[in-house]
Amino acid sequence: MLRGKQTWWFEKRPVIIGAATVVGPDEGDGPLAEDFDLVHPELDMQQKSWEKAERLLLEQAADFALQNARIDKEMVQFFVGGDLMNQIISSSFAARSLGLPYLGVFGACSTSMESLSIAAMLVNSGSADYVLAGTCSHNCTAEKQFRYPTEYGSQKPPTAQYTVTGAGAGLVAASGDGPTIECATIGKIVDLGITDPFNMGAAMAPAAVDTIQAHFNDTGRSPSDYDLIVTGDLAGVGHPLANELLLQNGVPMNDTVFGDCGLMVYDVNRQKVQAGGSGCGCSAVVTYGHLLKRLARGELKRILVVATGALLSPLSFQQGESIPGIAHAVAICGKEG
Amino acid sequence: MLRGKQTWWFEKRPVIIGAATVVGPDEGDGPLAEDFDLVHPELDMQQKSWEKAERLLLEQAADFALQNARIDKEMVQFFVGGDLMNQIISSSFAARSLGLPYLGVFGACSTSMESLSIAAMLVNSGSADYVLAGTCSHNCTAEKQFRYPTEYGSQKPPTAQYTVTGAGAGLVAASGDGPTIECATIGKIVDLGITDPFNMGAAMAPAAVDTIQAHFNDTGRSPSDYDLIVTGDLAGVGHPLANELLLQNGVPMNDTVFGDCGLMVYDVNRQKVQAGGSGCGCSAVVTYGHLLKRLARGELKRILVVATGALLSPLSFQQGESIPGIAHAVAICGKEG
Repeated sequence: MLRGKQTWWFEKRPVIIGAATVVGPDEGDGPLAEDFDLVHPELDMQQKSWEKAERLLLEQAADFALQNARIDKEMVQFFVGGDLMNQIISSSFAARSLGLPYLGVFGACSTSMESLSIAAMLVNSGSADYVLAGTCSHNCTAEKQFRYPTEYGSQKPPTAQYTVTGAGAGLVAASGDGPTIECATIGKIVDLGITDPFNMGAAMAPAAVDTIQAHFNDTGRSPSDYDLIVTGDLAGVGHPLANELLLQNGVPMNDTVFGDCGLMVYDVNRQKVQAGGSGCGCSAVVTYGHLLKRLARGELKRILVVATGALLSPLSFQQGESIPGIAHAVAICGKEG
Repeated sequence: MLRGKQTWWFEKRPVIIGAATVVGPDEGDGPLAEDFDLVHPELDMQQKSWEKAERLLLEQAADFALQNARIDKEMVQFFVGGDLMNQIISSSFAARSLGLPYLGVFGACSTSMESLSIAAMLVNSGSADYVLAGTCSHNCTAEKQFRYPTEYGSQKPPTAQYTVTGAGAGLVAASGDGPTIECATIGKIVDLGITDPFNMGAAMAPAAVDTIQAHFNDTGRSPSDYDLIVTGDLAGVGHPLANELLLQNGVPMNDTVFGDCGLMVYDVNRQKVQAGGSGCGCSAVVTYGHLLKRLARGELKRILVVATGALLSPLSFQQGESIPGIAHAVAICGKEG
């Protein structure tokens, strides 16, 4: 395998032969509704707890991804998954249902691309032919765990973000039909001292910038090599900050090239989502649901998904710690890419 | 890379060129005291919180591992780490201090071998020359998070285990002097319905058995191919159960070959540790501290470390869920192995 300093090159070009997304009502009311495999009309999904609902999202996304790939579960060798819950219980319980050898990962909302990077690494290295990557989040589990239960009806400042209720999964294979994974850049932690859990976009923006610049340094590429570069969930506050930081650092981005999954998944002017979407499910449902379809249609040839994560816990916040940010980037090409 | 169904073969034989362990007072009072790089005389390690103390353990273990390997931090390309804390904050904050590209992983107490497996995979695939793997746990952070704050002085049943205060880190390299990593078997989740968080050994034993059998199936090996096979932290209740299950399944283990890190790290007859040790730090300090030294001295030629994890959260337990178990196994050889 060729390599850059923090970039993995996948010279065998692992293929995403199937992907699927399952979302909740707010995402189904958003601009990308048509791209999701299943939209649940209710947040509880007829489950007894929000946590069971979140787990169901991931189990369904995994099942649909296998169906879309037309691959029997028995052929899949590993499941790489993670989520925002304490001890990533949604992924672990989904892994129990799947019955596959399981690697649990955690990078907060960057988990979507961390899991896809590791899945691609396993396939590219020849250690597996089929690896499933997946992640999920649920608005009510995340709010309850990180801030307040939604049942309290507490108010949030406009810098806050709205955790996506959704799961995305992709089946990575050594060969087959679908978009290919070209390389992945693994991020460092960047922490500029932001301590406000209602402003995670600002906490994560510098990490996104660091990973994007590392990606360009490692690969010798520039923004013009991509049809689209999307951050995971910087949303209305963090994304302009990242844009400005990149400009200051001599990497100007074209607005038509530089987007953010947190701004794409909702109509931020119409829907009550504060600054936009967040959560592991945010970049997962936008990437596996929307962007892969645009690659398949040939509208995009090569994209870079820069999933961003805020590595806080309620306890670290209560103890006065700042919020470490991280971002992992994956370059994905359309069939002709 | 050659492969079995759930086993990764590392044909380039990545080398653990340096390792280190840092522990607390109870581990320093145990039978392996001489094998640790640093023993803290107090549980708080002069930090303001238990969480800061836990983080310090991992930061120190990482620094010592680099010193022992005589490698500058700048040469290390990735840090793979995880721990038991919500949102693995100990590892993430240690990764912030280290300043390395970071992959957060979570497999509860199996994290020690999950992180070492991924580090070996990265080196074997040629995507890095130096990868640091590390994990940690602290008795007072784990008790507070999973059961009760130790300050309450609540009593525990004899089936309970005592979370190890300690961190272990290993630097995996493409070449150099030290024990080599031969293969890794990634476990499936096994859940036989145990719901008692004071009996995690029993919850994890079937997962250990499943991974050991998968390892033998994938590799064509048997117990006699190893000088030592250790489970991570099954301790006094879980380890005999695993032994019995293996016997029932036609894989009889010799008592001198089959051990458990949770039974090795303490003198369970003298120290007040209930059934024995547990926690991410348990298999980490025993492996990186004690077992690698025995391999280096030639007392052992080839070992299999089967780190076991109980993938519960306090919330999943409170919601009546059973405890999913998992185990990941890594085969390590001495220089001549």
